[in-house]
Formats: sequence, structure tokens, C-alpha cells
Amino acid sequence: MRDALVSAAFRLFLERGYERTTVDDIVALAGVGRRSFFRYFPSKEDVVFPDHERCLADMTAFLAAGAEDDDPVRRVCDAARLVLRMYAENPTFSVQRYRLTKKVPGLRAYELSVVWRYERALAEYLRGRYAGLRDGSLRADVIAAAVVAAHNNALRSWLRSHGRGDANAAVDHALGWVQSAFGAGPVRPAEERPEDVVVVVSRRGAPLWRVVREIESALGQG
Amino acid sequence: MRDALVSAAFRLFLERGYERTTVDDIVALAGVGRRSFFRYFPSKEDVVFPDHERCLADMTAFLAAGAEDDDPVRRVCDAARLVLRMYAENPTFSVQRYRLTKKVPGLRAYELSVVWRYERALAEYLRGRYAGLRDGSLRADVIAAAVVAAHNNALRSWLRSHGRGDANAAVDHALGWVQSAFGAGPVRPAEERPEDVVVVVSRRGAPLWRVVREIESALGQG
Repeated sequence: MRDALVSAAFRLFLERGYERTTVDDIVALAGVGRRSFFRYFPSKEDVVFPDHERCLADMTAFLAAGAEDDDPVRRVCDAARLVLRMYAENPTFSVQRYRLTKKVPGLRAYELSVVWRYERALAEYLRGRYAGLRDGSLRADVIAAAVVAAHNNALRSWLRSHGRGDANAAVDHALGWVQSAFGAGPVRPAEERPEDVVVVVSRRGAPLWRVVREIESALGQG
Repeated sequence: MRDALVSAAFRLFLERGYERTTVDDIVALAGVGRRSFFRYFPSKEDVVFPDHERCLADMTAFLAAGAEDDDPVRRVCDAARLVLRMYAENPTFSVQRYRLTKKVPGLRAYELSVVWRYERALAEYLRGRYAGLRDGSLRADVIAAAVVAAHNNALRSWLRSHGRGDANAAVDHALGWVQSAFGAGPVRPAEERPEDVVVVVSRRGAPLWRVVREIESALGQG
């Protein structure tokens, strides 16, 4: 029933446009009553994004199930991959929705609020992992935003290419770039990490103050 | 006239709530006609954020006026400070709006779309600066998101503290953290930057391949 409503809705959205399709049109095509529609979807907008609530719940559960010694940045990258998996499960549907969302400002706003909820889920997890660290909430918010931006950069490239190519490889590459930018990240203050090794590779011409600043920054003392 | 409409609107929003205030109520209190309201603001939501359009225009102009040898990350951080300045100009108004926005879902959605536009302005600038670089658009999107997240982390702390404390110092600190995370950033390919400094922090027990990967990644060869 739920799938039938989504199929009917998208057939109509593509045929006559999102704005000109009513919930009555959708239920008539699907052969069900209005109450059935609203049992599954609070509004017409929600039928465009039928799987985000489930995906958000999966993401939250995945983050909550993490171990104490998981690298936090890696964990949020893996959590972001759950979103990609949802899109990649059904490329045709995802590409159709991408085109629809670009054309309808209301859907764009809806999508922004969904993206915001994913970002908050990642940030809340990181805030927990970085609790007590200097700049813990700052680090959490910035890394969550970076992970979401990297994921969406790769996802949108894939959607723009009509779902051709390897979405997983593109997202892996993008998330790998974020992981390397933030490194393993200082989970504990520098003074508690006795086994750290700092390797400095510097061109001969670099001024000393710059080398010192980079070392301080790498040690989290900058 | 514009300021009078904003004052009247906020007085009513605070007294009777946003949802229960109509545009008619606002123009009656301000002593002007409906047409005057809509000359300045397309909708009731827009009166809540009266300065964002101007600030977006200022930001776009500021980025466009940048020199070829500006550090791109520093430039977008400076652009983000224009938003902070707008909030810090009128702390009482900014704190009132923050509380209002938290309570009204429609305003929260509006704010997300504004934040998205700032982020796109920063990302577009960075995409231009990183054009032709490997992962240029990825780098641009991630850094823009990180700058916005850092700015908003500091801004929200300040708003939550009722506008007490030094907003500029808080935002400087947050943006400084982002700048150190992304370094000066490889604006040109590594072989053309004779003064680059690369710092790799690694556990003593880390496998060699991982250290090598980090160095490659830092050099832009990963």
C-alpha cells in the first residue's frame, strides 16, 4: 500500500507536475482512500521522501551502537554511508526525485530540513564522544557539517550523472578526504597521548614560526 | 518605515506569539498600509530576518572583490564574519529573534534556507579558487560547510548566553580552528609550492602504509 502510494504519486508528479497533483489525485490512482494516505504520510511533501524517517532512525541506532574505541570520525562517515545506501538502492527513483526537488522550492526547503536532521544526529554523537575536550562542541559541529557536505557532494555528482557510475566509490573517496583532513582527531588531550609521533616535512625556505605554528596546531595546542 | 515595521512586528511577536500575529496587526501598529509592508517584505517570515538579503549581497561583493593571492580559506572566514557583524550590531534584537526562531518551525525552515544560501555563496567562491584542482568542488563544499558550522557554533553560544560576552572573539576562535584544520590549503599543485609545510601526527604503532597515506594526502597526492 505504502509503495503503491509512492509509485502513484511519482507517476503523477512526473506527468503533470508536483504542484498540480493533489493528494486526491494520488489516492484515486492508487485506488485507496485519503485516510490510507495520511496513515503513511503526514503531507504531500512526505511522500517525496518516503524513506528518510527510517534512515534517520537507522543512523541514530547505528551511532548509539558504537563502541568506546571506535574512531569518532570514521564512525560518522560510516553513518553517512547509510544515507547513500538508501539512495543507491533505487537509482531511478533517486534521480527522478533529485530532478523534482530542484524544480520545487517547497521540496528544496523540506530536503534542507532533512539534511539538517542528519547533520544534527552526527553532531550529537560527536559531541558525546568529544565531551570534556577543549572545543568539543565546535569540533563536533564542524566535522558533522564536513561529513554531510562531502557525502552530498558525491551524492549530487552521482544524481547529476543520472545515477550512472559507482556511487559508493564516489562517496568513499569524498569521506576519505574528510577523514584525512581531520585525521584520527585528538580524542584525548595531547598530554595524554604519550605514543604520538610528530613528523614534520618542511621545505627548506619555510620560516620557523610557520613550522612551529603547524606543530602546535597538529598537537592541538594552536 | 522599514525599521518601524520590524519594531512593530517584533513587539507583537513577543506579546502574542508569531503565529497569532497577522500582517494586518503589524501595519496597524506601525500606522502604515499593507502595501507598504509588502514593498519591503515579501512575507511575514521575511520581517523576522530583515537584514539577510543585504548581508548576502555584501558577502557576495566581498568575495568577488578578493585578490588572486588571497588565501581562499581565510577569505571565506572573513566573509563569514560579515554575518556575525550583522548579529552583533544589535544584540537585543538578535537574541529575541533567536528565541522566536527556536519556537516556530516555519522560521526554523526559513533560517535553514538562509544559512544554505550563505554556504552556497562561500562554496561558489571556493569552487572558483579551486577550479582545476583535483577534488576542487569537494574541497570547496566541505570547507564552506565547515566555516558555516564553526561560525554558527560560536554565534549560537553567544545567542544562548543572551548576547553577553565577546561574539567576535568567539567567532575568531572558531574560525581559527577551521583554518588550522584545513591549513592554508593547496591552492596550487604541491610541486609549485616550494614553501609548503606538512605535519603528520601518528601513533608510534601506526602501520607505515597509513603514515605514507597521510603524507600523500597532505601533499595533495593521495
